[in-house]
Amino acid sequence: MSLPQKTVFIISDGTGITAETFGHSVLSQFTHVYTFKQVREPFVTTIEKLKEIIARIDALADEGNPPIIFSTMVDHDLVEHLRRSKGIFLDIFGACVNTLELSLNVRSQPTVGRSHLDANSEAYHKRIEAINFTLAHDDGQFVHGLQEADVILVGVSRSGKTPTSLYLAMQYALKVANFPLIPEDFERGQLPKTIKPYRHKLFGLSIQPERLAEIRSERRPNSQYSSIEQCRYEVAEAEHLMRMQNISWLSSTSKSIEEISTTVLQILKLDQDTY
Amino acid sequence: MSLPQKTVFIISDGTGITAETFGHSVLSQFTHVYTFKQVREPFVTTIEKLKEIIARIDALADEGNPPIIFSTMVDHDLVEHLRRSKGIFLDIFGACVNTLELSLNVRSQPTVGRSHLDANSEAYHKRIEAINFTLAHDDGQFVHGLQEADVILVGVSRSGKTPTSLYLAMQYALKVANFPLIPEDFERGQLPKTIKPYRHKLFGLSIQPERLAEIRSERRPNSQYSSIEQCRYEVAEAEHLMRMQNISWLSSTSKSIEEISTTVLQILKLDQDTY
Repeated sequence: MSLPQKTVFIISDGTGITAETFGHSVLSQFTHVYTFKQVREPFVTTIEKLKEIIARIDALADEGNPPIIFSTMVDHDLVEHLRRSKGIFLDIFGACVNTLELSLNVRSQPTVGRSHLDANSEAYHKRIEAINFTLAHDDGQFVHGLQEADVILVGVSRSGKTPTSLYLAMQYALKVANFPLIPEDFERGQLPKTIKPYRHKLFGLSIQPERLAEIRSERRPNSQYSSIEQCRYEVAEAEHLMRMQNISWLSSTSKSIEEISTTVLQILKLDQDTY
Repeated sequence: MSLPQKTVFIISDGTGITAETFGHSVLSQFTHVYTFKQVREPFVTTIEKLKEIIARIDALADEGNPPIIFSTMVDHDLVEHLRRSKGIFLDIFGACVNTLELSLNVRSQPTVGRSHLDANSEAYHKRIEAINFTLAHDDGQFVHGLQEADVILVGVSRSGKTPTSLYLAMQYALKVANFPLIPEDFERGQLPKTIKPYRHKLFGLSIQPERLAEIRSERRPNSQYSSIEQCRYEVAEAEHLMRMQNISWLSSTSKSIEEISTTVLQILKLDQDTY
């Protein structure tokens, strides 16, 4: 039996990315009864543009299937217009902002868009710098400037270091370098020399040998590199080395880059932020 | 006069990334009265762990400064415990889930964590593939497989193509290639040959020459490459070429990668999603 489809409008005066992420999370609790078709409407700042969208919302409602609306618009007039549409209106910030105004006994100061994503802000500039640093320091390709790194990831080739590094840079403005652990390191029983002074920034990724062989095979099928024997050897040696060197590590096998990143922040005590 | 500081707890049974983004947006409407110190508490799935956090919340409240709590926990017992703490509790999904249950006349089905970020899901696998594709196709370095690309960004060197490409891959699981436009292309008055067949996937980035000169100077100070004359020449030629070739483009000068990405999705009609 296929589930009925519900249209979801993501309406924002900015990019709508917060509304989209939020909406996705909320609707994941309703996927047993509906499938959802999401329509993104970013940069809605005029009444003309909004009226055109409301017309489409009302048309769907008139056909008997009122769409769901997630909105993060801040302009009071626009919000009131949207609230009077025939869709199921969810003002995602509204309830929380009201509770805070009451609890803190202050008025909120609406800002259109999200200031910390403002391309002219210092915080944004720092993020872009972090992304550039991280790209330049991928896979041990550049060893200068490691004293500036916030995090240095280590692990065997294809254990998930690169996507995790990029996520940490993009989401948290962290400068991340990553270094492969290779058979030469295992023979010496030592970390690569260049990263030894930065032990407090190190975090290791490991992975199940079977999964590693699969991933490597996509890249270089039927090679020594992707053989299960080689993968077993490298993973065992890398885990042994990390244990000996007292480096925190986790297995990335069934973890998303978000989950890995969150753990890295916890372990390296980078999980506080001020704004 | 410095503003008083308020502690903010982000408490989640998963990574807490949704709660953090959401909390940041809500609190940006209160930065005229407070500064915020954010403490992230991810992976809270046991009552023992939660009680330890509540003790810290209550201690702050007893000192006269009750912290703000953003929570996305789903387990009913845990939520009720947290609700009885002395902090200012904001159950960010609660209100929306309730409204939807009433409007749709169905029960929600709570899921711990967010399924579409599940590392074992097809959607997640697609995201990682997109990131790998995008890294391999950065800066025109690899011209094979362009038929698989969802988006191909073009623009002069340092106009913002790489961070935008990575954001599109990471956030939207899109395979993005990017190609620099160089003086050789301008002389020929033509797009690079390899990308000509994919006109419908092309999107251009431009930038103010003054800003471009600044960015290039960080990399190669006092070079021909970073001179204002060279930047003016390249930008004028690139914009002329994009206009001639009928390619949609925008100026990245004062736009964030989120804003640029959102526009790319709109223009290339990639802004619908089903789940």
